Amino acid sequence: MTKTGVGIVETKYFTFANQQEGFILESKEKLVSVTLAYETYGALNKEKSNAILILHALSGDAHAAGFHKGEEKPGWWDNMIGPGRAFDTEKYFVICSNVLSGCRGSTGPSSINPKTNKPYALDFPVISIGDMVVAQKTLIDSFGIDKLLTVVGGSMGGMQVLSWLIKYPERIRSAIPIATALRHSPQQIAFDEVGRQAIMADPDWHSGNYYEGNPPDKGLAVARMIGHITYMSDISMTEKFGRQKKNNIQPFKFTADFEVEGYLHYRGDNFVKRFDANSYLYITKAMDNFDASAAKPFHEVLSEKSLKALVIAFKSDWLYPAYQSKEIVKACKYAGLQASYCEVDSTYGHDAFLLETEEETHLISHFLKSILQKRGKT
Amino acid sequence: MTKTGVGIVETKYFTFANQQEGFILESKEKLVSVTLAYETYGALNKEKSNAILILHALSGDAHAAGFHKGEEKPGWWDNMIGPGRAFDTEKYFVICSNVLSGCRGSTGPSSINPKTNKPYALDFPVISIGDMVVAQKTLIDSFGIDKLLTVVGGSMGGMQVLSWLIKYPERIRSAIPIATALRHSPQQIAFDEVGRQAIMADPDWHSGNYYEGNPPDKGLAVARMIGHITYMSDISMTEKFGRQKKNNIQPFKFTADFEVEGYLHYRGDNFVKRFDANSYLYITKAMDNFDASAAKPFHEVLSEKSLKALVIAFKSDWLYPAYQSKEIVKACKYAGLQASYCEVDSTYGHDAFLLETEEETHLISHFLKSILQKRGKT
Repeated sequence: MTKTGVGIVETKYFTFANQQEGFILESKEKLVSVTLAYETYGALNKEKSNAILILHALSGDAHAAGFHKGEEKPGWWDNMIGPGRAFDTEKYFVICSNVLSGCRGSTGPSSINPKTNKPYALDFPVISIGDMVVAQKTLIDSFGIDKLLTVVGGSMGGMQVLSWLIKYPERIRSAIPIATALRHSPQQIAFDEVGRQAIMADPDWHSGNYYEGNPPDKGLAVARMIGHITYMSDISMTEKFGRQKKNNIQPFKFTADFEVEGYLHYRGDNFVKRFDANSYLYITKAMDNFDASAAKPFHEVLSEKSLKALVIAFKSDWLYPAYQSKEIVKACKYAGLQASYCEVDSTYGHDAFLLETEEETHLISHFLKSILQKRGKT
Repeated sequence: MTKTGVGIVETKYFTFANQQEGFILESKEKLVSVTLAYETYGALNKEKSNAILILHALSGDAHAAGFHKGEEKPGWWDNMIGPGRAFDTEKYFVICSNVLSGCRGSTGPSSINPKTNKPYALDFPVISIGDMVVAQKTLIDSFGIDKLLTVVGGSMGGMQVLSWLIKYPERIRSAIPIATALRHSPQQIAFDEVGRQAIMADPDWHSGNYYEGNPPDKGLAVARMIGHITYMSDISMTEKFGRQKKNNIQPFKFTADFEVEGYLHYRGDNFVKRFDANSYLYITKAMDNFDASAAKPFHEVLSEKSLKALVIAFKSDWLYPAYQSKEIVKACKYAGLQASYCEVDSTYGHDAFLLETEEETHLISHFLKSILQKRGKT
């Protein structure tokens, strides 16, 4: 059953820009050029009909599967991508690209502003989820792919899926939004905002101009710790940590007494090594501003009736509660799309979309099979 | 129905210490002397049998009812205390004291350490919920009250109620723990810890030694913002703010776009004016360390079978979920106590214990009447 994964992989880079106009954003501002970091797994078939686009969440990146040379940790959705896995690389050509405004190889606030030859910092323009998707579409164009077999992603990745449904329904055959929402609730905005406030409260942030000095690591670590609480569930935390105390309790000076505290510190400290604080601000703001029903109700936007959707939610996910996924399903059905809904009975909270890979494999591989059957063999 | 409240009130101060020993804490450390700020409403009867002790939550204080001269905002539970209210000051003598380690008139880390003539800061000893209760008991002794009619409190106030049940069951006739827990879950610890980390990440914190300089206001504000998200509910935030944007959006530099963001900023900024960051550290740590079943199961600790308990939880309270209140009820019943349980159908989240005063009035006034009937007239 468990086959070897995709093995050693490398991140690639795709740079593009309309020489005259640059890359125009929803805000009407423009970027002179855009680079997207991306990875691919499997091979594109002759008909270019077997491509799947995987969209990552807030802190994800292009490295979804396999191993980078010399590294021990595989990509963030490795269990889902590879020969015999849900996104079977013996059948499908899988693409994962880092988002615009990210900090893992794509153009973002830490990139060099060609006007100043210094990092953009807060001179980087506001980015929307839609802008991320337009950039991805340009990457897909570069492969000569006319129609993606599916677009799939969890959390912010799911928002990008919804944005694909709105912007380029004719370029996809199906969509799999996982643990996501048509728009953030005030509670979701509030958690993001407190994270941003933690970063901006750090004097090392210097209004975003920290690239020549110390980055606001303490603030970013606090933001990440808040995030981690919301990614887990009351049950999963109890199962994982209980009220277990750490062995190495030092004389009481508000050090971490409980295991759960040590875990949060570890996660916070690790995150700052690989993530840019300004990217955190821009990306969370893009999520908060996203609203699939901004112009008109989502079901009125959905024009391509032949599209199929699989919507997945997780029972203990209180950050993106199941009722938000049901709203997506309702809109799809209202618009006449074939939408299936599955609420997975998981205790992992929002993290479940990264962890419940067995259940997801079952659901997604059947879903993909049904799409292929409908349209004939690839 | 709505009568005038208790009118103008003043905070009083009670200072005590065993001249030889000082005030010995659970940690075996001692304080040379202890001051508790407290307020009283109504009159103690001749038999001293009509006293009720009200216990406050994390950020509360002794000012539970009425108005301080020149102030427009009444005490934090004013709707519940006064003539004809749940804690009817025409019948009962109501006492509310600020907790030990607080910063609202009681001895805490911002108090002067008699050894150094400077504020204690982190030289202040670790305080437990039990220590707070021992100090309160000394205050009750000073009134010559042998038996309290009831002890009542929400959130951390409820933990103190549980501690009264454990430490001084012979000194109370009943107990009303509201929206509380026998012990914090790892999720509750995690939220507290992130708040503490936000304070300690603020360079103005200076390892607690900020009393001669600027206090760590930014860190404390972030801690308070995190708190406020957990005190509300997904529904109450949606009802209150939706995705409403603020009118005065400035050019995009991560200012508050959404109403909910502005609300959190406002709450954070206001809190730092009245609260000491070190007290926040000590009090949250006391809550995290509290465990009513630490020595033996809670039902085995409950020795006074004649005690009556009213346990109240709120449906949308996800910080102190109803299952935690049910554990309290279960232990009470298992121990042979008469325990009633009510889960109020509120959308206000954890804040409900401060807001659902009509429902609480109904429940509590009947409960108090039943206690008085049982033992005869006061």
